[in-house]
Amino acid sequence: MDGDRPDEFTLIKRYFAPLANDPGSLGLTDDAAVLTPTDGHDLVLTKDMLAAEVHFFSEDAPEAIAAKALRVNLSDLAAKGARPRGYLMGLALPADWTEAWLERFCKGLAADQAAYDVQLLGGDTIRSGNGLLVSITAIGEVETGKTVRRSGASPGDALFVSGTIGDAAAGLETRLHPQFSRDHDLTESEEQHILDRYLLPRPRTRLAGLITKFASAALDVSDGLIADCGHMAKASAVDITIDLDRIPLSGALQHLKVKVPQHFARCLNGGDDYEILASVPAGEAAAFQQSAQAAGCPVAEIGRVEQGQGDVHLTEAGKSVLLDFEGGFRHF
Amino acid sequence: MDGDRPDEFTLIKRYFAPLANDPGSLGLTDDAAVLTPTDGHDLVLTKDMLAAEVHFFSEDAPEAIAAKALRVNLSDLAAKGARPRGYLMGLALPADWTEAWLERFCKGLAADQAAYDVQLLGGDTIRSGNGLLVSITAIGEVETGKTVRRSGASPGDALFVSGTIGDAAAGLETRLHPQFSRDHDLTESEEQHILDRYLLPRPRTRLAGLITKFASAALDVSDGLIADCGHMAKASAVDITIDLDRIPLSGALQHLKVKVPQHFARCLNGGDDYEILASVPAGEAAAFQQSAQAAGCPVAEIGRVEQGQGDVHLTEAGKSVLLDFEGGFRHF
Repeated sequence: MDGDRPDEFTLIKRYFAPLANDPGSLGLTDDAAVLTPTDGHDLVLTKDMLAAEVHFFSEDAPEAIAAKALRVNLSDLAAKGARPRGYLMGLALPADWTEAWLERFCKGLAADQAAYDVQLLGGDTIRSGNGLLVSITAIGEVETGKTVRRSGASPGDALFVSGTIGDAAAGLETRLHPQFSRDHDLTESEEQHILDRYLLPRPRTRLAGLITKFASAALDVSDGLIADCGHMAKASAVDITIDLDRIPLSGALQHLKVKVPQHFARCLNGGDDYEILASVPAGEAAAFQQSAQAAGCPVAEIGRVEQGQGDVHLTEAGKSVLLDFEGGFRHF
Repeated sequence: MDGDRPDEFTLIKRYFAPLANDPGSLGLTDDAAVLTPTDGHDLVLTKDMLAAEVHFFSEDAPEAIAAKALRVNLSDLAAKGARPRGYLMGLALPADWTEAWLERFCKGLAADQAAYDVQLLGGDTIRSGNGLLVSITAIGEVETGKTVRRSGASPGDALFVSGTIGDAAAGLETRLHPQFSRDHDLTESEEQHILDRYLLPRPRTRLAGLITKFASAALDVSDGLIADCGHMAKASAVDITIDLDRIPLSGALQHLKVKVPQHFARCLNGGDDYEILASVPAGEAAAFQQSAQAAGCPVAEIGRVEQGQGDVHLTEAGKSVLLDFEGGFRHF
């Protein structure tokens, strides 16, 4: 690197090698990592790239940027039923990076590595043309043939979602327009909740084993709940009906639903939730819900899979509604 | 994306899905790729990230940028003895990207996928804060335990390098200072040769099998021949002696060696060669050289591994020399 800042070799030794405790990483002393797959398992590979001012704010805490970059990838693995094995990280540092920043960024990674039982396997650090960019490839394992896809949903399946929906989108709204919370009378703790949910996704890695056991199809909610239901419906060649009043909501979102339905509708499909959306055969629905509760990661049944050609239908109090981003939900 | 340009889903369908013919890519219709490892094999994982104006010029042909981004990763796999299986690509597009550009970029990938028998498995496309950035994770396979590391060189081993050295660095010099070739009386074909070598690395995938069969240690020459010998020497806790007059040189570099020794010295350790540097037990050296020749990828013996502690020594006409970037090579 430049000036009196350390070169790439020093960076690796000082900051990245301590994150690479898997023997396959070869301590980041080689050109490549070696991974010995567990017998009888497939590897699941996913890559999400995050750029400053597009996916996070460059003034966010470095620990939080690191955590988000890793977690959005772990979320994809969990939704496919895969247990994380490791990750490779490409880091494009802006011209004004500092060692103090990088130290905090790596502390964020270290904390998440411990929390999610995953290790750095390798990567690359370069100068960015402009802002920070983090490109992570995460690798998980799942028993051979057991990867859960988007395309397995069948008519009659129940539709589940983990956690609560809409918080991250409301949090982003508050980041962009700080008066949002005050304008809509959110309490301080409600405001903090939505800001946290935007800043720090919570990948549902604890559900991974239950997804392979019970789910016919699954994906993580990143584009928006209704959009992602559409992805599942199209990939599975079915229709999906969502009961709006069964979507699990935090206190903040319940409040918005009543006060500003048009914002609520946007947040509900705003994305960045990183919750798991899963279809489960009706006969297994109760067992899935109980097992998720026991795993400390509750899921709510929000709808059902029906015969169809890829459409998503919304109902509220038993009646069909249309999503209207200007006016909230519109009843026929 | 923005304006009248296609959104990410259209991009995937139109440009990336045709590159994803491996069944594990699931046609890029899911959140992750699935890779079933070949029984009895390890996976070798590498990640190199390239940024506009740092690793390539944004006005380079899109096909060439794509090829370089993929090939620098394939070069790492080859040097570890791994056969490529697939790759994931993160693409951060600048604000002014066009479909015509992307179409040519993907054509470059398609041509290389055919040439190197590798497939796109997955990835992510985002907006870049500034210039183009390509982040590729390549995945290869090698028989369990047979990955060749930097650290296995032993005293007595012979040191080999593939291809010719210094061309890419001279090519970069010519890109940066177009009068370079004329100032130093390079012929038009010599100039074209060094420009091509800078623009388009040639990963030595044909050597991968011979590397696992014969080499005690190997890496690809990307930082510079002498620097990379240093990496091998340090990782293996040995000394390495290079005979300068045995380093294989193109006509252009032979010319520079005579005309401008200080430029020649810089180019020799300039990097971006993407040739394979390998140590081979002396008893196997002749067989390695013959097999490489037969594989259409000649290697030259340029030195030897000796007892030591990680130092690199240079000799010329049997005498020790010091590398002096101002004055070329300095005899004691």
